[in-house]
Amino acid sequence: MSELKNDRLLRALLREPVDLTPVWMMRQAGRYLPEYRATRQKAGDFLSLCKNPELACEVTLQPLERYPLDAAILFSDILTIPDAMGLGLYFGEGEGPRFERPLRARADVDALGALDPEDDLGYVMDAVRVIRRELDGRVPLIGFSGSPWTLATYMVEGGSTKNFARSKGMMFDQPAVMHALLAKLADAVVAYLNAQVAAGAQALMIFDTWGGVLTPHDYAEFSLAYMRRIVEGLTREAEGRRVPVILFTKGGAQWLDRMADSGCDALGVDWTISLADARRLVQDKVALQGNMDPCLLYASPERIRLEVARILESHGSGVGHVFNLGHGIHPDIDPERPAAMIDAVHELSAPYHR
Amino acid sequence: MSELKNDRLLRALLREPVDLTPVWMMRQAGRYLPEYRATRQKAGDFLSLCKNPELACEVTLQPLERYPLDAAILFSDILTIPDAMGLGLYFGEGEGPRFERPLRARADVDALGALDPEDDLGYVMDAVRVIRRELDGRVPLIGFSGSPWTLATYMVEGGSTKNFARSKGMMFDQPAVMHALLAKLADAVVAYLNAQVAAGAQALMIFDTWGGVLTPHDYAEFSLAYMRRIVEGLTREAEGRRVPVILFTKGGAQWLDRMADSGCDALGVDWTISLADARRLVQDKVALQGNMDPCLLYASPERIRLEVARILESHGSGVGHVFNLGHGIHPDIDPERPAAMIDAVHELSAPYHR
Repeated sequence: MSELKNDRLLRALLREPVDLTPVWMMRQAGRYLPEYRATRQKAGDFLSLCKNPELACEVTLQPLERYPLDAAILFSDILTIPDAMGLGLYFGEGEGPRFERPLRARADVDALGALDPEDDLGYVMDAVRVIRRELDGRVPLIGFSGSPWTLATYMVEGGSTKNFARSKGMMFDQPAVMHALLAKLADAVVAYLNAQVAAGAQALMIFDTWGGVLTPHDYAEFSLAYMRRIVEGLTREAEGRRVPVILFTKGGAQWLDRMADSGCDALGVDWTISLADARRLVQDKVALQGNMDPCLLYASPERIRLEVARILESHGSGVGHVFNLGHGIHPDIDPERPAAMIDAVHELSAPYHR
Repeated sequence: MSELKNDRLLRALLREPVDLTPVWMMRQAGRYLPEYRATRQKAGDFLSLCKNPELACEVTLQPLERYPLDAAILFSDILTIPDAMGLGLYFGEGEGPRFERPLRARADVDALGALDPEDDLGYVMDAVRVIRRELDGRVPLIGFSGSPWTLATYMVEGGSTKNFARSKGMMFDQPAVMHALLAKLADAVVAYLNAQVAAGAQALMIFDTWGGVLTPHDYAEFSLAYMRRIVEGLTREAEGRRVPVILFTKGGAQWLDRMADSGCDALGVDWTISLADARRLVQDKVALQGNMDPCLLYASPERIRLEVARILESHGSGVGHVFNLGHGIHPDIDPERPAAMIDAVHELSAPYHR
C-alpha cells in the first residue's frame, strides 16, 4: 500500500495534533454531484452501482476531484448486510429501500445464518481494494456499517418507516426476539467491518440512523449495548496504525456522554447541540465529528463561512475535531456551496492548532 | 358557564396538588377513531371539518365518550392562521397541507395584514363556544396554536417539507425578513389565543413542531424568543382562574431549561429524555407534560401498563405532572389500546400524590 500523504483525519480522530482541522462530508459521493448521477445512470440503478466495485470506486473518488477533502468514504449502502443475509433488497421506482422477505417472527430470526463477508459481500471488499489502489495514499478511506438497531428496523419493517410500528412493536412485546436479532447483527457487523479493514479501510464509522427515536432506556438496551459489543470485537490496528472507530447516533446529542464510554475513538455530532456543550459532555475522552446543519449549504458562501467560524470557535483550541455536516448532504445542494465550507475550514482552523 | 367538575389538568399544570395524575393524548380526536373517520366523511374533507363548529365539537368530544380523559382539546389545525392571513390553505388528495400563495420575498411578508381572530377565524371561536357548552364542565378545554417558527416553515415552503431548504435558506440569508415574519406571527398568535380564551379555552398549548430541527443558537433566536413574546402577551386569567400555558418543542428535550424560563406554566416533553432528567433540568419551575413513546400503543396492554408505571416512577412524587404521549397518537393505533394507558395512569398514580 502506498504511504498516506494526508493523515489529518486519522490523527484528529485519535486526538493527536494536526496542522488544520480535517473535513469531509457525510454522503459526499452522492446525488448532488452531476458526475455521480452520470455514473449511476451508467450503472443502471442504485444497487447495481453499489455492487460494481469499479463504479463504486469511481463515485467514491468524484468528490475528491472537486474539493480538497481530507477523507474518502466507501460508497455503499447500510442495507448490504440484510441483503447478504437473504432478505432480498430492492429499490422500487421512486421508492426507498424494500425487502422481499422481512422478518416477522422468531422463526425468521432463528433462520438467519452467520455472515461470511468475503463470500457474501465480496463486492464490497473488492470496492475497498480498488478504491485504496486508486486513492494511492492521497487521503484515508473510511469504511462503515449501519448499527444493529438501525438495520433491524429496516429488516422488521420491510423497508423505511415513519412510525416504527412493527420494529418497536417487536422490541416492546417480544424483546427476546429483538435481542436475538440484534446479537446476530452485531456479529455480522463485526465480521463485515473487520473484513473492510483487512481489505484496506483505515477508519470505521457506525451509522445509528434510528437510535434517536428511542427512549433513553431503550436506546441503552437496544442500540448502544450492541454498538459497544461491536467496538469490542473490531480490529483496531492495521498497516501499523490504529484504526479509529466513530459512532454516530442521529438525534442522540443528549446521550454523547454514554456513547463516549463505549470504547470508540470519536463521536459524530448533529447540529442540535453546540460542540462546546458536546465537548463538556464527553470530557475530551473521544474526538468529535461535526456539526454543521446541512441546510447551511442552501445559504450564501459568506453565510457558510460565518457558520464554519462559529463551529470552529465552539469547539475551540486543542485536538480532537473533525469538521463535517451533522447529517448527509441534501441531494438538491448546488455543488459550488460545499467548496465554501471546505475552504473555510482549512483557512480558518490553523489558529486553533497552534 | 357550568362549574368545572374535574380540574385535575388545570391544577397539575399549575403545580397544585391533585388526587391522581391527569391524562390526555395529543391528537386524541383523530383518525385512529372510527367515529372520527365517520364524522370527517360527513364533513367532506379535513378543512371542512375544521371550519364546521358543530362537527369540530362532535370530534372533540368523541374520545371523551370512549375514555376517562382529564381534558378536551379543541379540534382544529395549526395552519388556520396562515390560511386566515390569505395564503390559501388546501389539502390535495393523499397529500399534506399546501398553500396556494407561499411567502417567497420581503414584499410577501410586508403585505401580510394583522389578524382579527373573531372576524378572520370566527369558525374557531364558534367551535370553542359550542364545545364549552357541550362539555358542560366535565373537563377543561385546551386551546392551541402553532409556534411562529413552525407556522413560518409551512408559509415559506408552501407546505410540509423534509429539508427546510427555503425556510432555513431565508433564516440564514435574509434573517431580517424571517424576523419580520416571525414578529407578525407572534402578534397573530397572541390575538388568536386570547380570542380562544375569551371564547372559553381554559388552558393553552403552543406546538413548536419544527423547533427541534434548529441549532441551539437558531432555536433561541428564531423560535424560543417568539414563544416568550407570545407568553408575555397572553391573557392569564379567565372565569376567575389562571389559564395555564404549555410550550412543546418536539425534539427540544435538551433545551427544557431555557424553555422553563419563558414564563410558561408547563412544558411538553417527548420520550427522548426521562422525566427524572427533565425535572432536574427545569428545577421544578414548571410542570411537565408527557412523555410516553406513542409507539407503546402498538404494544400489549400489559406492556403499556409497565411503561406507564415506569414514567410515573420517573417523575416521582410531588406536583406538576400531566401524563400524555410524547407526540400525537398514530392513526393506525387500535382504539382499545389507549384505554390501557389511561386506566393505568389513574390506577397507578395515587401513591405519588399522598
